[in-house]
Amino acid sequence: MAKIRLYVSGPLEAEKVLGLDSAQSNYLFGVMRRKVGDTLLVFDGENGEWRAEVAKANKKNGLLVCKQPVAPQAAPPDLWLLFAPVKKARTAFIVEKAVEMGVRAVRPVITDYTNERINIARMQAHAVEAAEQCGATFVPEVAEPVKLAKMLADWPEGRRLMFCDEGRAALPVAGALAGQAAGPWAILIGPEGGFSPAEATTLRGLEDVTPVTLGPRILRADTAAVAALTAWQMALGDWR
Amino acid sequence: MAKIRLYVSGPLEAEKVLGLDSAQSNYLFGVMRRKVGDTLLVFDGENGEWRAEVAKANKKNGLLVCKQPVAPQAAPPDLWLLFAPVKKARTAFIVEKAVEMGVRAVRPVITDYTNERINIARMQAHAVEAAEQCGATFVPEVAEPVKLAKMLADWPEGRRLMFCDEGRAALPVAGALAGQAAGPWAILIGPEGGFSPAEATTLRGLEDVTPVTLGPRILRADTAAVAALTAWQMALGDWR
Repeated sequence: MAKIRLYVSGPLEAEKVLGLDSAQSNYLFGVMRRKVGDTLLVFDGENGEWRAEVAKANKKNGLLVCKQPVAPQAAPPDLWLLFAPVKKARTAFIVEKAVEMGVRAVRPVITDYTNERINIARMQAHAVEAAEQCGATFVPEVAEPVKLAKMLADWPEGRRLMFCDEGRAALPVAGALAGQAAGPWAILIGPEGGFSPAEATTLRGLEDVTPVTLGPRILRADTAAVAALTAWQMALGDWR
Repeated sequence: MAKIRLYVSGPLEAEKVLGLDSAQSNYLFGVMRRKVGDTLLVFDGENGEWRAEVAKANKKNGLLVCKQPVAPQAAPPDLWLLFAPVKKARTAFIVEKAVEMGVRAVRPVITDYTNERINIARMQAHAVEAAEQCGATFVPEVAEPVKLAKMLADWPEGRRLMFCDEGRAALPVAGALAGQAAGPWAILIGPEGGFSPAEATTLRGLEDVTPVTLGPRILRADTAAVAALTAWQMALGDWR
């Protein structure tokens, strides 16, 4: 049987009864044909991974019972991914990849050259699916979009920002991150048209900003997101 | 006017007349409304980037004339990306990302657990589009799929292979690549179901293989491709 892993409402604990929503119930009992007594893996984002058993196999409102803990809770490093929304499929891709690569929060930013909108509820659902698939016990929050200028004005003290600056001279990412301290960080990926001159000036003026370049070719925003997350996780995160 | 960059048949040289195919002609003169005398950028994969001028604005068979060289030819490092075909959209994504990240060849491999097919002509067209978009002057060849066992049996002497081994104990990628020599390399990404025991045994027995792990979460094949390419380019490629 294919392994099934579901994100459910917690808090998970032994013998807790877990209600499934209609989409989960239909998937589990309609598509995957699971029956009473079958087991699967569940997580709630806060209490690790547990084995659960099917108690009621109804396609509209199934029930599970939480049994044994399987893996402890594991949070990714304290890293935010900031990105300007791009077209729908690529935005969904960025959210999925952020979860697989390991971030604490996904924060869309509206830049001067951002034209696209973002459906936060839909993107949060993508984050849940990605966590179910990649074995994570943590689901990053997909925040409401905020204007970049406002986010920078309210920037939290002590959080460093890796700024992927395609248009300007900056150090290659490996050198730029070497010797930096771990701790709270964020990565900023620009829109396909880049940052406006005013935005670039503000970013360069911020004390906590580390500008980096990602190779000699122009990367799409979704590629840049995965590449930047890889570089950061290798240098300062949980890929060490 | 939006910047246009087209891959054309060469060899490019001053005053050479360049015929456009019907798709390019329709795009340039139907969609983008370019007229005789307008200029755009062209490359042929071997002779750098040139400025060209529209000589005949026909939506079925337009003509350009090659004018001045703009940028020299730049080949990516001698790196192959080997991957098992996955579902169509994600395979297209892997090919697109390989071009942006910079590889010399894209080589699909059929593993014991590979179920998907691949349309090579379509994937080659994706590689061309990605090169047009990312500013590359080189288009990697998308090779016909080969069985993994055959590819390993015919493995070229002196080419190292980075094997992304999700299921087993291997060094984190940064440490595994540190101190390795540059030169001909390949990266191997497995199918969603991983490698068979026989394949893993063969791979571990090869002298030129460097197994690596890509962090603590399970990565989809398309994510693993971008992450592995990033790690390699940072350590041994043209991102240094």
